[in-house]
Amino acid sequence: MFISETQVEVRYAETDAMQVVYHGQYVVWFEIGRTNLIKELGFHYADMEKSGYVSPVIDIQLSYKQPFRYGETATVRTWIQDYTGIRTTYGYEIKNAKGEVCVTGSSVHTVVDKETFRPVKFKKEFPEWHEVYEKEKQSK
Amino acid sequence: MFISETQVEVRYAETDAMQVVYHGQYVVWFEIGRTNLIKELGFHYADMEKSGYVSPVIDIQLSYKQPFRYGETATVRTWIQDYTGIRTTYGYEIKNAKGEVCVTGSSVHTVVDKETFRPVKFKKEFPEWHEVYEKEKQSK
Amino acid sequence: MFISETQVEVRYAETDAMQVVYHGQYVVWFEIGRTNLIKELGFHYADMEKSGYVSPVIDIQLSYKQPFRYGETATVRTWIQDYTGIRTTYGYEIKNAKGEVCVTGSSVHTVVDKETFRPVKFKKEFPEWHEVYEKEKQSK
Amino acid sequence: MFISETQVEVRYAETDAMQVVYHGQYVVWFEIGRTNLIKELGFHYADMEKSGYVSPVIDIQLSYKQPFRYGETATVRTWIQDYTGIRTTYGYEIKNAKGEVCVTGSSVHTVVDKETFRPVKFKKEFPEWHEVYEKEKQSK
Repeated sequence: MFISETQVEVRYAETDAMQVVYHGQYVVWFEIGRTNLIKELGFHYADMEKSGYVSPVIDIQLSYKQPFRYGETATVRTWIQDYTGIRTTYGYEIKNAKGEVCVTGSSVHTVVDKETFRPVKFKKEFPEWHEVYEKEKQSK
Repeated sequence: MFISETQVEVRYAETDAMQVVYHGQYVVWFEIGRTNLIKELGFHYADMEKSGYVSPVIDIQLSYKQPFRYGETATVRTWIQDYTGIRTTYGYEIKNAKGEVCVTGSSVHTVVDKETFRPVKFKKEFPEWHEVYEKEKQSK
Repeated sequence: MFISETQVEVRYAETDAMQVVYHGQYVVWFEIGRTNLIKELGFHYADMEKSGYVSPVIDIQLSYKQPFRYGETATVRTWIQDYTGIRTTYGYEIKNAKGEVCVTGSSVHTVVDKETFRPVKFKKEFPEWHEVYEKEKQSK
Repeated sequence: MFISETQVEVRYAETDAMQVVYHGQYVVWFEIGRTNLIKELGFHYADMEKSGYVSPVIDIQLSYKQPFRYGETATVRTWIQDYTGIRTTYGYEIKNAKGEVCVTGSSVHTVVDKETFRPVKFKKEFPEWHEVYEKEKQSK
């Protein structure tokens, strides 16, 4: 199973009055990890949008173990946790510089038509992409 | 069981290139709902911070059924879903103007010391607040 | 000259590690003020977008005099500062509950085609809207 | 005069319903450029905060020439535009991959006590930092 690793430096704008990264911000970091995983597997989310589709999140879950502070650099680890041919579940783990797991989570995505938001079969519309995800799933 | 209802108008800044509200943004709307629920139950989160404590999220989960677009107004419904004396679970449901449920979710919170981030017993530090949450839990 | 007034409660997500509202966040508050001014003058920005146009910001300026903290409510005052038939300049002033001016600024906008981003003549495409802005300008 | 260059990839969360980067987001990109300029000149903003000071923005100005879209990478160029011993003005220019200038701007900063928000003399509290900024100013 391939695990993508992306470095993210805490932006001041991402902190809140608790003087740590705002908990909602990790949704964005997950997205950065996901974008990079897709790129490293050979595809581009921007290309999917150009061809008339978008891939909305239908479910997301985050668990917080330790906060990040301004000045820190995070490593976002992302992988294919599950894949059904229609739905893809991405798994995430965010570590600090000491290697401690600070945030974990997962998100479930479908692919829909850009205009109508009607679901399409990922397998059928993106056969090569499907193949790679299928392989990732089996290598778990 | 008391359910708080808060109106939220979609801000342009909250939309993304899918031309709907960015999925991470609902974490903020949950927070607005939670703040109002607490206020309507007779307390103020800002007061908790002034007395030296913060209440970080340790777990959050969101499910997306329908998107919101710019120009729409949402109703965020929030309630006490569970309470253990240490951890509080808030439940959320976001409806559009037609009354359709668009987003649901829950978040789990503890109370910790502002400086050390060490957990404190909510029950002991905030006895009146505890009483109200206990009552809410039992009225479910 | 008409001045729109909008109440904005500080959201926790809007604060940063300085424990005040993040300076970039006031751009969003300006937008809320602007949206309401337009509404109170009888128009809807969302309608403009539906008819195929968008109104990007081409210049924005903000001056910070005093910070806002979580728990505070702001009043965003917005007016038409200048209008050329092509460009509209909105003026802003954000006051705290004590009536102190905390943030001031202005933003300049054009109207462009949604797809091509080519400028259109506001006066020609939105004659009624033009009339109102012209009147606002003259009443200064 | 030293000009810092920082690459920034557009995050999906940074786009809005106009399908371009939200105009308020560039305030954050300016901040990323500024943080890197400071680092490359030999200092760390995080260290300033640890020593009891913060450096709020007192004035910011942005001009928009061309939008950025999801999938693009920006180069944020940042330099010391002016320095008085008390106030520092940073200059910014954001270019796209074709080398076109898309956003320009400047921001003015002071240094204040973290708790009281009372201004301190940068020159006195941070003499080495002062020296470098003075030199940058003269090399213009």
